Amino acid sequence: MASSFILKGTLIYAEDSSTLKVIPDGYLVCENGISKGVYETLPERFSGLKIRDYGDRLIIPGLVDLHVHAPQYAFRGLGMDLELLDWLKQHAFPEEMRYADLSYAKEAYRMFSEDLKKSTTSRACIFATSHREATELLMDLMEESGLCTYVGKSSMDRNCPDELREDTENGLREVSVWLDHVQGKYTHTYPILTPRFVPACSDPMLEGLGKIRHQYQLPVQSHLSENPNEVAMVKKLCPWSKFYGDVYDRFGLFGGEEKAIMAHCVWSGPEEIDRIRERGVFVAHCPESNMNLLSGIAPIRAYLDAGIRVGLGSDVAGGSSISLFRAVMQAVQVSKLYWRLEDSDLKPLTLTEAFWMATKGGGAFFGKVGSFEEGYELDALVLDDREITYLGKRSAAERLEQLIYLSQEPDITAKYVAGRQLF
Amino acid sequence: MASSFILKGTLIYAEDSSTLKVIPDGYLVCENGISKGVYETLPERFSGLKIRDYGDRLIIPGLVDLHVHAPQYAFRGLGMDLELLDWLKQHAFPEEMRYADLSYAKEAYRMFSEDLKKSTTSRACIFATSHREATELLMDLMEESGLCTYVGKSSMDRNCPDELREDTENGLREVSVWLDHVQGKYTHTYPILTPRFVPACSDPMLEGLGKIRHQYQLPVQSHLSENPNEVAMVKKLCPWSKFYGDVYDRFGLFGGEEKAIMAHCVWSGPEEIDRIRERGVFVAHCPESNMNLLSGIAPIRAYLDAGIRVGLGSDVAGGSSISLFRAVMQAVQVSKLYWRLEDSDLKPLTLTEAFWMATKGGGAFFGKVGSFEEGYELDALVLDDREITYLGKRSAAERLEQLIYLSQEPDITAKYVAGRQLF
Repeated sequence: MASSFILKGTLIYAEDSSTLKVIPDGYLVCENGISKGVYETLPERFSGLKIRDYGDRLIIPGLVDLHVHAPQYAFRGLGMDLELLDWLKQHAFPEEMRYADLSYAKEAYRMFSEDLKKSTTSRACIFATSHREATELLMDLMEESGLCTYVGKSSMDRNCPDELREDTENGLREVSVWLDHVQGKYTHTYPILTPRFVPACSDPMLEGLGKIRHQYQLPVQSHLSENPNEVAMVKKLCPWSKFYGDVYDRFGLFGGEEKAIMAHCVWSGPEEIDRIRERGVFVAHCPESNMNLLSGIAPIRAYLDAGIRVGLGSDVAGGSSISLFRAVMQAVQVSKLYWRLEDSDLKPLTLTEAFWMATKGGGAFFGKVGSFEEGYELDALVLDDREITYLGKRSAAERLEQLIYLSQEPDITAKYVAGRQLF
Repeated sequence: MASSFILKGTLIYAEDSSTLKVIPDGYLVCENGISKGVYETLPERFSGLKIRDYGDRLIIPGLVDLHVHAPQYAFRGLGMDLELLDWLKQHAFPEEMRYADLSYAKEAYRMFSEDLKKSTTSRACIFATSHREATELLMDLMEESGLCTYVGKSSMDRNCPDELREDTENGLREVSVWLDHVQGKYTHTYPILTPRFVPACSDPMLEGLGKIRHQYQLPVQSHLSENPNEVAMVKKLCPWSKFYGDVYDRFGLFGGEEKAIMAHCVWSGPEEIDRIRERGVFVAHCPESNMNLLSGIAPIRAYLDAGIRVGLGSDVAGGSSISLFRAVMQAVQVSKLYWRLEDSDLKPLTLTEAFWMATKGGGAFFGKVGSFEEGYELDALVLDDREITYLGKRSAAERLEQLIYLSQEPDITAKYVAGRQLF
């Protein structure tokens, strides 16, 4: 239950992509799950609220993972010597087949949901497999975890193993059944339409999903321009399309009033980038996955300059870890390589920019999320950095920088999501 | 004291860069600090030795860090938004000045040596500052830690703050005094000549160090072709040189019978690469540092193909973490980006290759080190991977892969260096 209270500690959050706000010994006021702002001195009007004093611990907004595959969690960190399409065939798809078995799904999804709950992630947009029942089970577990999540039953009717391939009509019917089962069932777990990616979705499948989207007013998540081989495959499969993203857009699955997330966008050309901006699509930047699966580096600086909405994704298991601190570090690191090796006009991301993407940037997909400003849903992590040895004095911003670089799974003293204390 | 015993567990080591040896429930025999080989069944002749049974824990060789700056440890993970030469001016040099104060040096170096002892690193080649007394103090602490290390008093007589700049003659005299103090003083801590890098060492300084090297028969460590700005600076400072490494070589500081390590080699041209190979120079590959300081990616595949000796370095604090598991992961990751963005003829490194570089590859600088084969010095880590949640069965090699990707500071049950148990 969301409640009202005050957190006291060293507050840090990114107000925008270039402004890190720091309030040492600050007060963060929560009323009914919503921030009433941060204060150096507590205003008299809040004196009735109970203060939870965390001393000099760092308190930051919970992190937002815009792209993660729950059914790949059980083999994260394995099989990293293949490129995307081969890796899907040899690792991801065989594992995903196992989710036809609900007892396996239950065990594996429980592991995922428990580990995600313990992590720095407060909110996530999650791919499930194409199995409806296992997806519903995952949603039950995510609700139980207390995290706020969007979960999608994947749709796929071509270019995948028989065990995962849906008949188009059946697949679409299963999406409707799934939506009827889960809509309104939970308080903080939501369905999201999830065409796997164009190579695995025929035009009729995408067209059907577009209609369902219109009918149910749903957000959508998918993959876009991750790998050159994949982009070439889409060109072949949809010769009528102007570019990869044009396929989603043609079927009403690209942005719009109900939001859309496209993961990766490593190889988006100028037209696709324009369309992403025009449609208000969120780009989920997944730097580790893009390295591991030999995809490349997404030009995130160009997207930020163009006013495109960007958040971070772990992309487990293309990324090995659910740690978003790791994703923040790697977003900065690969942007430096992009500047050095590809385009010296695109200056590297700063740590503040990457931290902003992991909080308020991606949080915007969930509404007013990812900041401590007044009116934002109160997601907070209380972090204990006493394990990091140091000498002398560090500023609060320096403590955060060291934590991000050195503790990819930091000690978390307490975790709040939308005002609910998870632990 | 080195002793004789048998370790039992799941043994894993890289026999060469493409061969990962795995012996589940294997016996690793140590006599007087030297491996007598690994066995599935214990030979009768070793039945007198005590067995330390670690169940199904993973046992791997200790890791070798070929390049780390001890006096930068106290600010690791901070100030990562600058390029090499600016970062040196604004972060590294000001911190290094503090080591003129022995009480500061003692506190900071103790933190470094204690943390390094607790880490996966068994052996390291360490830069100190230009201060002789603080360097001797660091060597005392390293000896106390039980790790095997080379430690170098840095030499620098130009292009650095006054507080660090040595008068050339004085600086050379201090090197001799240092060597007279420390040679033969320790059992597992050795001096190594350490010209900071060409931009900070005049020709007379390098010439003098070359003479000292010849006189004392010492190995040498330095930096080479890390960053384009630095390479351009060397060209200007030493217009007579054919390439950066030619400067070290001219003064007898580049490979030879007494070994040499050159860190980075990101921007080495064909002539420099030939010279590195001819002289048997070790390349210390520092992937995280090369990202953080905007240097680029070293073409390690080309070096391996050319038969150049390569190991890994954390390069703290250009690298943020002393974790060599992190360096292994990042070596693979940046090699994938190099393949994708720079040269598709240079295929990405495999995990086994990167693990080999972190053990036997870099270990060769210390002699027969970094493997469990008979005759190798016995460095071993007993690792506990029970924190990593998983389902079903994994092979021992998969357990190692997951540990490297997910636990950059793994739980270490026991650590042996040259047969001595550190904990």
